[in-house]
Amino acid sequence: MNANQTVFEYLIKKLYDYGVRHVFGVPGDYALGFFHELELSNLEVVNTCDEQGAGFAADAYARVNGLGVVCVTYSVGSLKVANSTAQAFAEKSPVIVISGAPGVKERLENPLLHHKVGSFDTQLKVFEQLTVASTIINDAEIAGKEIDRVLSAAIRNKQPVYIELPRDMGTEIVTPYKTSLVFDQNTDKNVLKEALVEAVTIINSSKKPVILAGVEIHRFGFQKLLLKIIEKTNIPIACTLLGKTVISENHPRFLGIYEGAMGREDVKDYVESSDCLILLGTFMTDINLGIYTAHLEKGSSIYVTSEKISIHYHTFENIQMEEFLQGFLNSDLKFHKTNNIPHPIHPVQTKPIKGKNVSVSYLFQSLNWFLDDNTIVITDPGDAMFGAVDMTIHKAAEFLAPAYYASLGFAVPASIGTQLIKPKLRPLVLVGDGAFQMTGMELSTSVRYGLNPIIVVLNNEGYGTERPMLDGRFNDVLLWDFCQIPKLLNSGLSFNIKTEDQLEDALDEVKKYTKSFCILDVHLDPHDSSMALQRLTKALGKRISKSM
Amino acid sequence: MNANQTVFEYLIKKLYDYGVRHVFGVPGDYALGFFHELELSNLEVVNTCDEQGAGFAADAYARVNGLGVVCVTYSVGSLKVANSTAQAFAEKSPVIVISGAPGVKERLENPLLHHKVGSFDTQLKVFEQLTVASTIINDAEIAGKEIDRVLSAAIRNKQPVYIELPRDMGTEIVTPYKTSLVFDQNTDKNVLKEALVEAVTIINSSKKPVILAGVEIHRFGFQKLLLKIIEKTNIPIACTLLGKTVISENHPRFLGIYEGAMGREDVKDYVESSDCLILLGTFMTDINLGIYTAHLEKGSSIYVTSEKISIHYHTFENIQMEEFLQGFLNSDLKFHKTNNIPHPIHPVQTKPIKGKNVSVSYLFQSLNWFLDDNTIVITDPGDAMFGAVDMTIHKAAEFLAPAYYASLGFAVPASIGTQLIKPKLRPLVLVGDGAFQMTGMELSTSVRYGLNPIIVVLNNEGYGTERPMLDGRFNDVLLWDFCQIPKLLNSGLSFNIKTEDQLEDALDEVKKYTKSFCILDVHLDPHDSSMALQRLTKALGKRISKSM
Repeated sequence: MNANQTVFEYLIKKLYDYGVRHVFGVPGDYALGFFHELELSNLEVVNTCDEQGAGFAADAYARVNGLGVVCVTYSVGSLKVANSTAQAFAEKSPVIVISGAPGVKERLENPLLHHKVGSFDTQLKVFEQLTVASTIINDAEIAGKEIDRVLSAAIRNKQPVYIELPRDMGTEIVTPYKTSLVFDQNTDKNVLKEALVEAVTIINSSKKPVILAGVEIHRFGFQKLLLKIIEKTNIPIACTLLGKTVISENHPRFLGIYEGAMGREDVKDYVESSDCLILLGTFMTDINLGIYTAHLEKGSSIYVTSEKISIHYHTFENIQMEEFLQGFLNSDLKFHKTNNIPHPIHPVQTKPIKGKNVSVSYLFQSLNWFLDDNTIVITDPGDAMFGAVDMTIHKAAEFLAPAYYASLGFAVPASIGTQLIKPKLRPLVLVGDGAFQMTGMELSTSVRYGLNPIIVVLNNEGYGTERPMLDGRFNDVLLWDFCQIPKLLNSGLSFNIKTEDQLEDALDEVKKYTKSFCILDVHLDPHDSSMALQRLTKALGKRISKSM
Repeated sequence: MNANQTVFEYLIKKLYDYGVRHVFGVPGDYALGFFHELELSNLEVVNTCDEQGAGFAADAYARVNGLGVVCVTYSVGSLKVANSTAQAFAEKSPVIVISGAPGVKERLENPLLHHKVGSFDTQLKVFEQLTVASTIINDAEIAGKEIDRVLSAAIRNKQPVYIELPRDMGTEIVTPYKTSLVFDQNTDKNVLKEALVEAVTIINSSKKPVILAGVEIHRFGFQKLLLKIIEKTNIPIACTLLGKTVISENHPRFLGIYEGAMGREDVKDYVESSDCLILLGTFMTDINLGIYTAHLEKGSSIYVTSEKISIHYHTFENIQMEEFLQGFLNSDLKFHKTNNIPHPIHPVQTKPIKGKNVSVSYLFQSLNWFLDDNTIVITDPGDAMFGAVDMTIHKAAEFLAPAYYASLGFAVPASIGTQLIKPKLRPLVLVGDGAFQMTGMELSTSVRYGLNPIIVVLNNEGYGTERPMLDGRFNDVLLWDFCQIPKLLNSGLSFNIKTEDQLEDALDEVKKYTKSFCILDVHLDPHDSSMALQRLTKALGKRISKSM
């Protein structure tokens, strides 16, 4: 490291070296010094309207870029990102939460400085629950080592970490130290060998192996490795919803999204009849598995995650996932000559009927056709997400959805984080009217930074996914005239859509209008729902009201 | 208690008995059962756009009503109110946080149910940091006792508490129990006597005693007791900013707001030259005390709070604040014949100059004249709050501002909580353009529930209070055309205001238009500021950039 670097400079350089180019946040007095330093640096500060928006934007950025940063002030800022940090933790998104804080000298005698909750370390204790590593930089002598320790924990675990910067520490000179810490986990070669031999034997002797790939493939960057394994073995592959697009959905061995009864029936049947299910980087979550409608047989599964590897009913620890996958590739896994596998339904061009009301099913078919190689689909939880299960995402594009933690309000701010680091991709944001009312005004931030997302509001007059479970006035929301938003923000284009022809016309216009955001207010029957949700409802019958 | 009450019924009845009439929140699947039960009960569910809005609304409600409730779903809901709960903790506002959660039976085998962060008790651990008591209702046998324990902690401490309701517990029958717990603190009579004798002796022998009253007077409902003490002793009284309106600002013994150099100079001089300062229920916070410009002499102070009582340099514990104040009233405290005390400047009718741009100073003078007995002033932190220091609040009205924790985005949702429980008061909401962009769209909730707040947006094109500290692009915000909001929400009236005459005309219209909200977009010079902030800046000179 360079001598004479300040704490601020050291931290900023490290973030840049790790590939960070943007920092999301809202300034506050305890963080002003750091914001000032960021403005002078080669990182761009992206001010959101509210810290919540910054948290979601940083989460999406981390998912796409490998690392994201949200920078806030003490308590009033940091506690507003508790929820987005929890989501990043649950869904393995490496977000660095940097919080300004009262100076070390200011804390003496425990005065009632503004923004303090109970004690000065209240927020540290909160973030200890929501991160894999945390630190308060209160000593320049170990600042460098501490920053490195915490950042490498984020990289290694793909989960959020917390760095608190007392405001009088920023200009202190970091004491140089020898980078001698080994932050990586080691693989026990004996364990690896035994696990590989057993797995390969089982797979080679199986008749109908299937890979079910999950989100860790994406987070740890194993897409190419996975592709090679599939090319070597010819094993068909399905993905979970959280893992959607870890492989191109046009790949000849791709079956579709497996999601229990919520997914397509042919995929479900194929996966569940496998005599050797190979789960790679999959979270066994309830939504991923179609709210308990999945039937996966543990006794015939090989389950590989970054945390541990299980074969049938026994477990191997201390194996790096990458080494295990690499081991697969170097092993004598045979080529499986399976044919007749299900394939995703390819989008067909919709033919609008003039004056016919748009149904949820028509909307998703139409959007599916609309996608091109430069689209990234980002959805909020709810039917916006379930409906997207059946969309075929093209090879260059990606799909982002908080399919496990499922926090409403994610999608609009997530589009900001995504497009800033992937400027060639235009986000197609699918969001319910209820979720839009939470964070949708972050479109203001899109305008400020010259972005042009396409926002499709699935306007079904309330919390549509909850109505079939238990309905009441509490599932209603006030009806907004979303088409007024361009006037409020002095930018963008809006479309009020009730019929199929209006939808097609709007999508044509949207392709041409690229200088700012487009918002499509798509009016839907409050009791209509996506094919995926209809499949689930059919399978569960009335059980849904109990199980979700 | 009634036999055969379910957990839901028991909790709802207790809340009603404590004076709660509204519950703020956003439903989610883990909380749907409770929302359904609330809808059937005599409590009204108030759906906000986002949980953050519900948290702030409940905080304001608790401040005005003595108890407030926010009800949310697991993790994705509860963690969105971490910040508002922290504010309630720091500023002594008794908010009950009720969170739906996975059922007790669902938690077996630790499955990956949606919304889960690390472990099932992650959010409990978070809220343990932000509340004075917390519980998970996982056993019907002790549910009644647990609910009572936690609710009484909120009442006793005037601070938030946390109740987690696993969704399979709601319909369980609560086992009756004898209410035998003593939840109140006791006063040690010997301690009380000694403290009273010493305090009375000091006050009686002082030449220039002054009372400085704080927010605990309001929270614990000691306003009448305070009034009697002042009538008995004739001692002049100042208030802190957080304690503004604990006494009528028209009272003949009221000096004004004491806030160090940020307050009026005559008040500062009078208070700081006292030979016997009696602090009653005051938080010694930095903002309350004008960011370190206060000069209060501990050696001549009597400091009474709900937590302890200090006289000069020694401390008494185990004294109930109410008994101490009652002891004052029953003691032989003498009548002080002080005259020539400072008085607040009474508002004068502003005379607009046509075409002259509105200054911050003119705005506050004009609003001060506009107030009537049915106005409650609610401010966001920043110059909206500092400027209100000099406003004279009329006797029937109140003043709400998060003057210590200072979380931006409070005021608009706070107006919802306030007006629902005090329907005769019309909120005058003072909010910066930056803060409005955080939570201002909660006006949607005001419309839904038929409220009519007056929103004054102090539009100075960014974070105005931060500019004098350290400026940069990070203090800018996108300019919104706030006047479009009524069209977006299909309700309300808006005013675009640049000049003094436009302001006066708008305020005349606002008085007549009472059927929905009014929003005044008041354009201000980005470098203008309130008289209070100007006084502070003058006193601190360049020190402000270091101290705030």
